[in-house]
Amino acid sequence: MHALDAATQLTRIGPERLSGRTSPHYANLGGPFGGWTAATMLRGVLDDERRHGAPVALTVNYCAAIADGGFEISCRERRTGKSTQHWSLEMMQGDRVTATASVVCGPRRPVWSHRPAHPPAIAAPETLPLFSAGGRSVWVEQYEFRFEKGAIDFGSRGAKELRAPDSLLWMRDRPERPLDFLSLAALSDAFFIRAFVVRDQLVPVGTITLTTYFHTDEDGLAAQGSDYVLGYATAHTFSGGFADQSAQLWGRNGLLATSTQVVWYRE
Amino acid sequence: MHALDAATQLTRIGPERLSGRTSPHYANLGGPFGGWTAATMLRGVLDDERRHGAPVALTVNYCAAIADGGFEISCRERRTGKSTQHWSLEMMQGDRVTATASVVCGPRRPVWSHRPAHPPAIAAPETLPLFSAGGRSVWVEQYEFRFEKGAIDFGSRGAKELRAPDSLLWMRDRPERPLDFLSLAALSDAFFIRAFVVRDQLVPVGTITLTTYFHTDEDGLAAQGSDYVLGYATAHTFSGGFADQSAQLWGRNGLLATSTQVVWYRE
Repeated sequence: MHALDAATQLTRIGPERLSGRTSPHYANLGGPFGGWTAATMLRGVLDDERRHGAPVALTVNYCAAIADGGFEISCRERRTGKSTQHWSLEMMQGDRVTATASVVCGPRRPVWSHRPAHPPAIAAPETLPLFSAGGRSVWVEQYEFRFEKGAIDFGSRGAKELRAPDSLLWMRDRPERPLDFLSLAALSDAFFIRAFVVRDQLVPVGTITLTTYFHTDEDGLAAQGSDYVLGYATAHTFSGGFADQSAQLWGRNGLLATSTQVVWYRE
Repeated sequence: MHALDAATQLTRIGPERLSGRTSPHYANLGGPFGGWTAATMLRGVLDDERRHGAPVALTVNYCAAIADGGFEISCRERRTGKSTQHWSLEMMQGDRVTATASVVCGPRRPVWSHRPAHPPAIAAPETLPLFSAGGRSVWVEQYEFRFEKGAIDFGSRGAKELRAPDSLLWMRDRPERPLDFLSLAALSDAFFIRAFVVRDQLVPVGTITLTTYFHTDEDGLAAQGSDYVLGYATAHTFSGGFADQSAQLWGRNGLLATSTQVVWYRE
């Protein structure tokens, strides 16, 4: 079993209640990698037999640090219409809410389609070096990153001049794993924090909310397989302790997902 | 009292329970303008004496058509930490969930700031014509829109060629009203549906989820006053019945908000 599947495994303990455990494979500083949290919340819906259609939108709010160990998730179907289905989730450790989430699902249909956006130009993945965190980050080891632009150096003490806020890279699970909504949700949070890129330094931060829109279906995921995903991320503003990030994830056959997030930073 | 304030007024009926009524001023086809729903949900938090800091992020999920008349909102504080506060909301009509929402608040602090994004170039508002829906839309009458690019014609039967998905315009409440988080939330959904812009035609649609990030504070809002807000919106994809929108709202002194949404379309 791939580490991502093991790490996001949930046990049903009630009609709308699940339990799980954090995984050492997706550890980050001060709690798990936020992409693991996103994937785990989404899995609550993916595994539910009442699910109608594929995921279209996922919002995760990171409420409190998640301690290593067990947690419970309430996964409530709030409304199922003809076109869309809405879910509300909460992850709890004891009586502390560590994360909330909403998921919208819906069946994709063969109707008018139009794709005005195009992927940014990037060199072939084979020509770009494999990124390494130099043993300083566990979750990063679960991914193959090949940066064309905007990598970070985990050992750096900061840049004299601020750098551009954008990153352009190839990314996929390591070891390879066929892409599905679970891994796409995790990948949508696998861009390094924009403040690290701009300042070339690790500073105290935490993602506080993440929204990911899925633009593909089961057929699109099957066509992608375990091939590289092109990732592009940028930021508009770092202001008063809150920064944003906008990201795109492109497959070989088109846009797979777009994602936005807000990051809190201390100084 | 401005129509927006009257339309979003809530009455406390319990510790975490509010009631309100839809407003004829913000009516849209098949229920109220989604920006009204967003503002009304946010107001539940803005009016709560437990609120800690200013709104940073708002996600609204549009679950079902909202009927004209009364509704109740549950507004639950889920977690208050040192840096952020998380709220979960639901709007109900009878036993039907019509919308869910999450709000993140937090105090902005005088720390390192950096604003790499810049507003798009646009002509002065006075030089651009005042938009009119020709009496075909009530909520549009509550706004002053002055388009440089990407307006729609409510009477059009469709374009022979698809148009660009982006709109660039000045926008503000009509009559003028000093900008606050309430009006900024509503404005973040006041861009016309991207499918209307691309196809130059009104087609059956519904916004299913909206996420707005606020990048300003009370001082920034006070400096803006009731001046025009520069709005820019675009879309990446229209695919299988779901389309996205990304938007920016700029004040005279910088970025006020960014916003993304997913729109369902029938055909």
